[in-house]
Amino acid sequence: MRIVEVRELTVPLAGTPANAVVSFAGHTVSLVALVSDQIREGRPVTGLAFNSIGRFGQAGILKERMIPRLLAAAPEDLQASDGSAFDPAAVLATILQGEKPGGHGDRSGAAAAIELAVWDLNARLAGEPAYATIARAFDRTLDPTEMRLDVPVYAAGGYYYPDDSIGRLRHELERYHGLGFDAFKIKIGGATLDEDCRRIEAALTVAGAGDRLAVDANGRFDTEAALACGRAIEAFGLRWFEEPGDPLDFALHQAISKAYSGPLATGENLFSVMDVENLLRYGGPRSGIDIFQMDPGLSYGLTEYGRMLDLLEQYGFHRSGCFPHGGHLINLHVVAGLSLGGCEAYPDVFQPFGGYSERCRIEGGRVTPGEEPGFGLEWKEGLAPYLEQLMAGL
Amino acid sequence: MRIVEVRELTVPLAGTPANAVVSFAGHTVSLVALVSDQIREGRPVTGLAFNSIGRFGQAGILKERMIPRLLAAAPEDLQASDGSAFDPAAVLATILQGEKPGGHGDRSGAAAAIELAVWDLNARLAGEPAYATIARAFDRTLDPTEMRLDVPVYAAGGYYYPDDSIGRLRHELERYHGLGFDAFKIKIGGATLDEDCRRIEAALTVAGAGDRLAVDANGRFDTEAALACGRAIEAFGLRWFEEPGDPLDFALHQAISKAYSGPLATGENLFSVMDVENLLRYGGPRSGIDIFQMDPGLSYGLTEYGRMLDLLEQYGFHRSGCFPHGGHLINLHVVAGLSLGGCEAYPDVFQPFGGYSERCRIEGGRVTPGEEPGFGLEWKEGLAPYLEQLMAGL
Repeated sequence: MRIVEVRELTVPLAGTPANAVVSFAGHTVSLVALVSDQIREGRPVTGLAFNSIGRFGQAGILKERMIPRLLAAAPEDLQASDGSAFDPAAVLATILQGEKPGGHGDRSGAAAAIELAVWDLNARLAGEPAYATIARAFDRTLDPTEMRLDVPVYAAGGYYYPDDSIGRLRHELERYHGLGFDAFKIKIGGATLDEDCRRIEAALTVAGAGDRLAVDANGRFDTEAALACGRAIEAFGLRWFEEPGDPLDFALHQAISKAYSGPLATGENLFSVMDVENLLRYGGPRSGIDIFQMDPGLSYGLTEYGRMLDLLEQYGFHRSGCFPHGGHLINLHVVAGLSLGGCEAYPDVFQPFGGYSERCRIEGGRVTPGEEPGFGLEWKEGLAPYLEQLMAGL
Repeated sequence: MRIVEVRELTVPLAGTPANAVVSFAGHTVSLVALVSDQIREGRPVTGLAFNSIGRFGQAGILKERMIPRLLAAAPEDLQASDGSAFDPAAVLATILQGEKPGGHGDRSGAAAAIELAVWDLNARLAGEPAYATIARAFDRTLDPTEMRLDVPVYAAGGYYYPDDSIGRLRHELERYHGLGFDAFKIKIGGATLDEDCRRIEAALTVAGAGDRLAVDANGRFDTEAALACGRAIEAFGLRWFEEPGDPLDFALHQAISKAYSGPLATGENLFSVMDVENLLRYGGPRSGIDIFQMDPGLSYGLTEYGRMLDLLEQYGFHRSGCFPHGGHLINLHVVAGLSLGGCEAYPDVFQPFGGYSERCRIEGGRVTPGEEPGFGLEWKEGLAPYLEQLMAGL
């Protein structure tokens, strides 16, 4: 059993017609196909994945470095010991041959696209949804009572609008509520503190309670501004305060964690176990309070993400505090398979990758993955034309 | 005055015929040309640079993200206020538009290639060597007594050989000595501690004294192994002990810095000011003892490197402790222009980029840059065919 071909297609991201505010010009995603030599119903079984959303496609690193290494490997070195599946950790080690330590940036997304496609490929070979493959590989099914397939989900968005900003913000969240969401996340840090507090108050009229509303500063604040923001919003009792400052400024994070009593969330811009360990050592996260948002699709895939979970547990944290960045089908299967805290969803943006498929069910603030094999990307609205292009001739 | 075209050529790295040990298969460098609309002697004045050595070319990130942003910018936004030169910091901010915080990996090398080419372009516009442009931009010429153009240089190499390893190591260093070098760096961590100590003893017979020999573990050790190595080599009184462990494992670095009395060196795998600040906050570097090896060509260029120097000085360190990674013409001009501690050179490997040109002078353990405009890349042996290919038709 072997991988005979690897294909990559760089796909541009777009908002939906409902969102005219956020520009995704230039944002792209690498869609990857791992074509195996196993034939089912006349076509090769093929693993499909992509490197999450919000950053960039990685055609250069994939085509120049990682795909040639993968295709040059001995097939037996990429298989699980019983030959029934591919070994994601072995594939990851292969595509990272000759890469130096440190510098966990774009290459971590490139590697993730391939590594995640191995999980999709294994799930298709086993004829099961990816969450089942993931749960088995990480020994999660040993405790079936812990496994719940309908996972908490919140709707992220809450953008700034050029006019009637607060009215349109409320309208945006009301629309998400109509789609089945009962928790929300909005942007802060792009206006004065007073204005941001008025936006939070408006959002709370839809969310109904502080623990149903998170705020995301996207790393904009320095320490002083982050502390000031924390003081201003603390009384709202929000679900969490996300990325107050630079994701690598662990001293800033520690200062806020000492001053702000509510939950803090960070991690979507930490792309390796070593960076996460530095957050744990120096950033002062609080067990049972703070939220971790590392995203397998940006950080070398599920093999490295599993190591991050092990590390969190060694440091006394629980996986229920993990809400991976990237509201899409792949992370839904990861969250369900690993019994993490929950998912995000971006109903309006990051198309055609953002959000879930018609095979998933969203209700009562929870989302349930479908039962089709793999991640089920072929069921996601808008992805079909790109998948056809990627797999043409197979 | 504007930049009319940006070209990139991915160039493979090779050893020299004298070195059959180190494989550079797959290692590449991005050679970049910034073509201006200024015509001299019938040809456009063109800035040339590359993204250092030892990692990879960045054609994908350059062509998909950075070059389009640069060419879309308003020309006046890229110029210095008096219109006489381009503004490297403005160019850097432009090519990083839409890039999120964190994740300082491959993109930092891509950005560096363009940013460094701005320095070459400015030097050519001014008709002066790049070290002069750099010194003026960073106000170094205000104290001309401090400016010495012949900067210390050491020869790096000292590889493991499959047979007669110690004899061939000694032979390698003797050859470097014959080329004008009087200080050396060799690899450790690839054999047992006993074997490495025998290699160090052999190298010392050529170097003559501990302070003329550094050792480089290339990040291979965990904390325990690094401490054991430090105990074994401490009595040699070596020039420095380089990258004992993972470059982002600041706790490891601090543990070694408390246990090992000699100089430690690190930084070549830290690609942003934020990562360097974490080293200073958590890694325990000792002022007046330890060495910093950050490399502008891997870390967004000279603009970011200047910010790193400012930070080091704020924390009480001196620039004489800075020996940038990457033994090549660009960093020679950086070291001379900024009065840093010194340069490395790889006489045998990283061709055609490694080492200096016939216009430079190496003697008595020091290297002096040439006086030709810019970095003088066109004088480097072996680079000419690639430069011709890159600039064809200009």
